[in-house]
Amino acid sequence: MANKGQVKIGIIGSQFQGLCHAEAIKGIPDAAEVVAVASPTPGNAEKLAKKYGIPRFFTDYKEMLAEDDIELVTIAAPNYLHAQMTVDIAHAGKHVLCEKPLCMTLEEADLMIETCRQKGVLLMYAEELLFTPKYVKAKQMADEGAFGKVYMVKQLEKHFGPHAEWFWDVERSGGGALMDLGCHGIAFCYWFFDRAPIKNVYCHMATHVHGDKTKGEDDAICIIEFEGARVGVIENSWGRRGGMEDRIEVYGEGGETYADLHMGNALPTYSEYGYGYAVEKAPSTKGWSWPVFEEFWNYGFPQEMRHFARCVRGKEEPLCTGEDGKVVMEAIYAGYESAGKGRKIDFPIKSHKVKKPIDLW
Amino acid sequence: MANKGQVKIGIIGSQFQGLCHAEAIKGIPDAAEVVAVASPTPGNAEKLAKKYGIPRFFTDYKEMLAEDDIELVTIAAPNYLHAQMTVDIAHAGKHVLCEKPLCMTLEEADLMIETCRQKGVLLMYAEELLFTPKYVKAKQMADEGAFGKVYMVKQLEKHFGPHAEWFWDVERSGGGALMDLGCHGIAFCYWFFDRAPIKNVYCHMATHVHGDKTKGEDDAICIIEFEGARVGVIENSWGRRGGMEDRIEVYGEGGETYADLHMGNALPTYSEYGYGYAVEKAPSTKGWSWPVFEEFWNYGFPQEMRHFARCVRGKEEPLCTGEDGKVVMEAIYAGYESAGKGRKIDFPIKSHKVKKPIDLW
Amino acid sequence: MANKGQVKIGIIGSQFQGLCHAEAIKGIPDAAEVVAVASPTPGNAEKLAKKYGIPRFFTDYKEMLAEDDIELVTIAAPNYLHAQMTVDIAHAGKHVLCEKPLCMTLEEADLMIETCRQKGVLLMYAEELLFTPKYVKAKQMADEGAFGKVYMVKQLEKHFGPHAEWFWDVERSGGGALMDLGCHGIAFCYWFFDRAPIKNVYCHMATHVHGDKTKGEDDAICIIEFEGARVGVIENSWGRRGGMEDRIEVYGEGGETYADLHMGNALPTYSEYGYGYAVEKAPSTKGWSWPVFEEFWNYGFPQEMRHFARCVRGKEEPLCTGEDGKVVMEAIYAGYESAGKGRKIDFPIKSHKVKKPIDLW
Amino acid sequence: MANKGQVKIGIIGSQFQGLCHAEAIKGIPDAAEVVAVASPTPGNAEKLAKKYGIPRFFTDYKEMLAEDDIELVTIAAPNYLHAQMTVDIAHAGKHVLCEKPLCMTLEEADLMIETCRQKGVLLMYAEELLFTPKYVKAKQMADEGAFGKVYMVKQLEKHFGPHAEWFWDVERSGGGALMDLGCHGIAFCYWFFDRAPIKNVYCHMATHVHGDKTKGEDDAICIIEFEGARVGVIENSWGRRGGMEDRIEVYGEGGETYADLHMGNALPTYSEYGYGYAVEKAPSTKGWSWPVFEEFWNYGFPQEMRHFARCVRGKEEPLCTGEDGKVVMEAIYAGYESAGKGRKIDFPIKSHKVKKPIDLW
Repeated sequence: MANKGQVKIGIIGSQFQGLCHAEAIKGIPDAAEVVAVASPTPGNAEKLAKKYGIPRFFTDYKEMLAEDDIELVTIAAPNYLHAQMTVDIAHAGKHVLCEKPLCMTLEEADLMIETCRQKGVLLMYAEELLFTPKYVKAKQMADEGAFGKVYMVKQLEKHFGPHAEWFWDVERSGGGALMDLGCHGIAFCYWFFDRAPIKNVYCHMATHVHGDKTKGEDDAICIIEFEGARVGVIENSWGRRGGMEDRIEVYGEGGETYADLHMGNALPTYSEYGYGYAVEKAPSTKGWSWPVFEEFWNYGFPQEMRHFARCVRGKEEPLCTGEDGKVVMEAIYAGYESAGKGRKIDFPIKSHKVKKPIDLW
Repeated sequence: MANKGQVKIGIIGSQFQGLCHAEAIKGIPDAAEVVAVASPTPGNAEKLAKKYGIPRFFTDYKEMLAEDDIELVTIAAPNYLHAQMTVDIAHAGKHVLCEKPLCMTLEEADLMIETCRQKGVLLMYAEELLFTPKYVKAKQMADEGAFGKVYMVKQLEKHFGPHAEWFWDVERSGGGALMDLGCHGIAFCYWFFDRAPIKNVYCHMATHVHGDKTKGEDDAICIIEFEGARVGVIENSWGRRGGMEDRIEVYGEGGETYADLHMGNALPTYSEYGYGYAVEKAPSTKGWSWPVFEEFWNYGFPQEMRHFARCVRGKEEPLCTGEDGKVVMEAIYAGYESAGKGRKIDFPIKSHKVKKPIDLW
Repeated sequence: MANKGQVKIGIIGSQFQGLCHAEAIKGIPDAAEVVAVASPTPGNAEKLAKKYGIPRFFTDYKEMLAEDDIELVTIAAPNYLHAQMTVDIAHAGKHVLCEKPLCMTLEEADLMIETCRQKGVLLMYAEELLFTPKYVKAKQMADEGAFGKVYMVKQLEKHFGPHAEWFWDVERSGGGALMDLGCHGIAFCYWFFDRAPIKNVYCHMATHVHGDKTKGEDDAICIIEFEGARVGVIENSWGRRGGMEDRIEVYGEGGETYADLHMGNALPTYSEYGYGYAVEKAPSTKGWSWPVFEEFWNYGFPQEMRHFARCVRGKEEPLCTGEDGKVVMEAIYAGYESAGKGRKIDFPIKSHKVKKPIDLW
Repeated sequence: MANKGQVKIGIIGSQFQGLCHAEAIKGIPDAAEVVAVASPTPGNAEKLAKKYGIPRFFTDYKEMLAEDDIELVTIAAPNYLHAQMTVDIAHAGKHVLCEKPLCMTLEEADLMIETCRQKGVLLMYAEELLFTPKYVKAKQMADEGAFGKVYMVKQLEKHFGPHAEWFWDVERSGGGALMDLGCHGIAFCYWFFDRAPIKNVYCHMATHVHGDKTKGEDDAICIIEFEGARVGVIENSWGRRGGMEDRIEVYGEGGETYADLHMGNALPTYSEYGYGYAVEKAPSTKGWSWPVFEEFWNYGFPQEMRHFARCVRGKEEPLCTGEDGKVVMEAIYAGYESAGKGRKIDFPIKSHKVKKPIDLW
C-alpha cells in the first residue's frame, strides 16, 4: 500500500452507522475514499455503494478483506460481531476502525487489542464526541483554566430508540441504553478528565417505555468517580420523544459551561407544510420543530474520519484506541453489575464470566 | 382570635429566610400581615421590623408567643431549632409554618407532628416549589396527560453556597447541599408523583469546593425510586458559580417538558455600568448577566403564603404538611446513609440513633 | 359611592378583551370586583356573567350605566364605539378604562379627554405593556443606568390575526396590524423614553397573508424618532404562525437587554397526546410547543387592573391616560400617512379630516 | 497556470480581513493555498506571512501581481482601493475575489465588472452569509416549501465598531454601519429572494455612540421592497456592546424560522478566571460570556473559499459576483439618499455624481 494519497477504506455494514461512515468520508475527499462496502443482507451493500458511488460491494466481508488496496476497514456491524471482525481484519493486515461499543466482553477487548498489536495494525475506536466541535470548545476552555479544577462533567444523550433493529435484541447488542448511548458519555468523561483511572461506578437502570420490544434497559443514569476527586454523570434514554437530545454540563470550582447540540444550536422553526429534514429521529417537520444544520459536521463525524485517516498515514496518533474502548467496556460492565446489586462497583474489576454486559443486571 | 380578616403572623428569624417571609407576606396584604418578628441577635429583629414596618420585635421568641393576636408563627431559624420552636409555638396555641428542612431527626419530626395534632394547630411545611408557577404548569400538563405515564422527574438546584452562615456548620444544619437544597427536589418529586411511597434512595456526595468551610457535602446527586416505576433525580450543589440555578425536566413515555427558572426566564443583559440587582447570589451585574424579574413571585413565595394564610382561615387544606416534611427527612437520612455505604437504601427506614443526617455519611 | 373597599366595575364587551378584564379583576379580589357586564349580542353578556359569577348583565350598556354602585366602566368594545361610550360613561359620572387603541380620530380623542375632565372622572388607557413584569424589569435596569444613554427600543408583537372578527373590518377597527398591535409598541417606547415628544414617524406596511379577509395591513414596521436622539422600532404582524410572539430589545451606549415573553419564558415541551392550553393563539398542543405559565400575570393584566383600581381610590396617579392614548393615535395616523406617502411624517401633526387612520394609507 | 491542484492565491491586506482570508484558506488545504501577501505598511505583510507560513510577502501589491503562479488575488483592503486594485489584478490576468462592500461608486462597480469581463477573469464578491451553514439551512427549508410564500426576511448584525481603523474614516470607507454591515444583509435578502429586483429602499440612520470617532452613521435600519411583494429588513449597529450579534428571521405565510449565530449557538459559560477566546469583539472572557465554537466555519469562511477556489477551477459557477456586489451598492446608495431625504427611494437609481455613498445622507 502506498503510504500517501487518500486512504482507501472498506466499510462493513450498510445500516445507519455504515451510512454515517460513508457520509463522513464523503466530507473528506482529500484524505480518504470508500472503495468497498460489505453487508451480508443481499442487496444492502449494493444499495449503499450506488448511493455513494462506491466501486465495489460484497456480501461476505472476508472477500472484501482480500482486496489488496484497502488500507482501513471500518466496522459498522452489530456489537457481537466486532471482535471476530477485528481479528479477521487484522489478520488481513489492514487497520481497524471499530464503532462503539467496542465489543461484548472484556476478553474480546483483550483479544482485539492484542491481535492488532501483533499484526502491527491500528485499532481505532470511533467515539465521535471527542471530535464534536462544540464539546471540544468546552474541553478547550477547561484546559485553559476557565473553570479552575473541574469536578463534574455531565453528558446526556436521549432519543426514542436505536436506529438498528438488532439493538433491541440484547443477544446481539449486549444491553440497552447504557450499551448504546452510555458508551459515548463514559468515553467523553474519561477523555475530559485526561484518562484519570475510574475508581467506581454506580448505575440506575429501568425499562420504562419499551418493555414490549426489548429485554434491555431503556433508561440509565450512571455516576462514575474518577481518580482526583472528579465525577462523571451520564444520562441515557431510549424513552425521550421529539427527536435527539445530546448535551453536556461542565462544573468547576471556578465556573461552568453548558453545551447543547440540539436545542442549543437549532433554528426554532414553525412550518405549516413541513420540509425535508429536521434532526436525527425527529418525529415530524410540521408544527414547531428544532432543525439542526450540518448535523454530521456538528457531531464531528468528518473530523473524526479525517483524524483516523491521518493516523493511518502516520501524521497523528489515535486519540481514541482499543484501550479506551476497553475502559468504556469495563465501566459498562460495572454499570450493569451496579444496577443489579444496587451498589457502587469498585475498580479494578475482574472478568465476570458472562457473555454480555446485561447478564449482570 | 377572630377567624377573618388578615392572618396575623409572627416571624422567628431575621436572616435571608426571615426576610423572604416578610417580603412574601408583603405581597399578600389582603390575606396576611406580619405583626411581630423575633431574633436572638440584638438589633436584628428591630432592623427587619423597621424595613418592613412590622410593629413589634423581640429577642426572645417565647415572648413573642405570648402575644395574643398572633395566629401563625413562621420558623426561619437554623434547622436544629425547628423542633423545639414548633413545640413551643403549638403549646402557645398558634399555627406553625416551618421552613425546610423540617428538623434534624425523625424523632423530632414525630414530636412536631404529634404536638401540633394534640394542640389542634396546623403544622405547615414551607416547600415553595409546589407553588412555583412555572413548575406548577409542568405538573398541570402532566396531569392533563401531555406526557402519558411520567417515568422520571428531575429537579436541579445549584449555587455557590448557602445564605446563612450557620448552614456551613453541620451541627446546626444537619448536613450540606442535600440537606439545604435536596429537600426541595425530594419534596417536588414526591408531590409530582402524587405522594407515591418511596421505595429506595441512592445518593452520591462529595465536597468539591468548600472543604475549608464545612464538613458537609457541597454536591449531591440523589436517585429516588417511587412506587409505580417512577424515578426522581435530584441534583444539588453549593459549588456552582455565577448565580442561582433551578430547573426541572419531566419525562413521560408520551413526551417531556423543561422548565428553567433562571436562564430560561431571564433577560439576557449586558451592562457596562452595572445595575441594581440581577438574581439571587449573582456575583455581578456588570458584563453579561441573567437578571430575573419578580423573583419572589416566580419562586412562588407569595402564592405559598397566601395558601397557608387561607389554610389558617380554613379555606384550603395545607398542600404541604409536617408529614410531607417527614418523608423528605426520611429520604435525606436514606441519602446520607446511601452515600456512606455506597448502595441503595430501601424503605421503610428505621431510626438511626444519630443526632443528624450527615452522621450517616 | 363609598371611596373604600373593592372598586365596583362594569365591563362593556364580552369577547376576548371583555374576558381579559373579567379574568384580570378576578386576580385582584381585594381591590376590585366586576358587578355588571353589558354586550349587545343577546346571550353574550349573560354567558360571561355566569362564567365569572358577575351578578348583573345587560344588552344595552346605557342601562348598565344607570346602576348607582358602579364606579368604573371598562370599554372592551370595537374601536369605533370607544368615543361615544366614553362620553356616555363620563356623563353617568363613572370613571373610564378604555382598551387600546383609544379611538378612531384625534377629534374623538380630544372629545374623550375633555368630557372626562369636565365630568371629573378619570380616563385611563389600558396599555398593559407598562405593567408587563419582564418589561418593567428592563425599564428598571435602564433607569438604574445599566445601559447608559438608551438610544433604541424595539418592541415586536406578532401572531396570526386578531381575536375579534370585527378587527378584520377596517370600518370598525380603523386599520390593521398597526392599529391592533402597533398601539402597544408605540405606547411602550413612549413610556420607556419617559414621554419624550415624537419628532417623526416612518412606517412600512403591507398585506402579505390575509388580503382575502381584510383591507387592513397585516404587517407593519414603524420607526419613530423621539426628542433626545432616541428611536423606537415597532414591528407587528398578523401573519406569524405558531402562536403569539411578544418581545423587546433595548440598546444603550453602555449595554443592552432582551426580553421575550414567549419563547424566552416558555417550557419547551413535546407532547404526543396534547394538553389543555399552550399560549395565546397556539395552533396545537401536540408535537413541540411553547407553553407559557400564568399568561395573564406575565402580560401584566392583573397588575394593571390593580393600579387602575387604586387610581379610582386616589391611591395612585394613572400611569397611562387618555392623553397617552392620544399620542399613540397621532403616531398611528402618522404611520398610515407615512406608509401612504413613502416618507417620514414630522410632528406635530394636524387633523387629517378622515374617518379613520387607514384612510391615509 | 496549471488548471488543477491547489489554487494559488495572493492576498492584498494584512488586517482583520486579510487574516480571515489566510485562516479560511488554511481550512481548505486540498483546494487552495496562499502563496503571497501584500500590504503597504512595512512589516505587516511579513508578519502575516510568518504567522501562516506564506512564502512570499510584498509591500507593493503590484509587485505581487507580477508573480506568475498566482491565479487568484483577494482584496482585503480599504473600500476606496477596491476598484483600482481589481483593475490592476484583472490586467495581470488573475482572478479577483473582492471583499465587501464592492467599491465606492456605481461607476467603479461598472468599471470593475467590465474590466474583468474583458480580461476574461472572474470577479467574485465575498459575501460569506451565502455560505453560513445555519443560514443556508434556513434558505433550504424555505426552498423546500416549509414556510409557503416567504414575505419577509430580516438580517441583523451588530457589534461595537469595526475591526479596521480606516472604517471610521468615511473618506476611505464610504460610510458607516450600513456600508460596513448592511452590505451583508442586503446581499443576504437579495439571495434569499432569488435575486428578485429591488423596488425601493428606505433607511433610517443615526450616530448614537461614536460621534467622536466618525462622521459615519453607527446605526442603520434598512427596509427594502423586492419585486414579488417581498420585504427585506436589515438592522446594523456599531453601538452594541458585549460582542458580535448576527441573526436572521424568516417569515412566510406558512411559518417562520429563527437563526442566531451567537447566542443561539454558544455555550453559555461562567468563568471566574477567564479563558482564551469567546467570540469576535467580546469584551471579556471573565464572568458570563457566550463563547462560540469553530467561529470561522460557522460564518462560512472556509466553505466560501472552497467555492471560489472551485470556481477558479471551473467546477462551480460563482454564487456571488461583481454584479451582485453592484446591486448591493445600489441599495446602499439608495439607503443613504433615503436617510438624507426621509423617504423611500425607488429603483432603478441613477448615478448621483458623488464620491461615496454617505455623501447622500
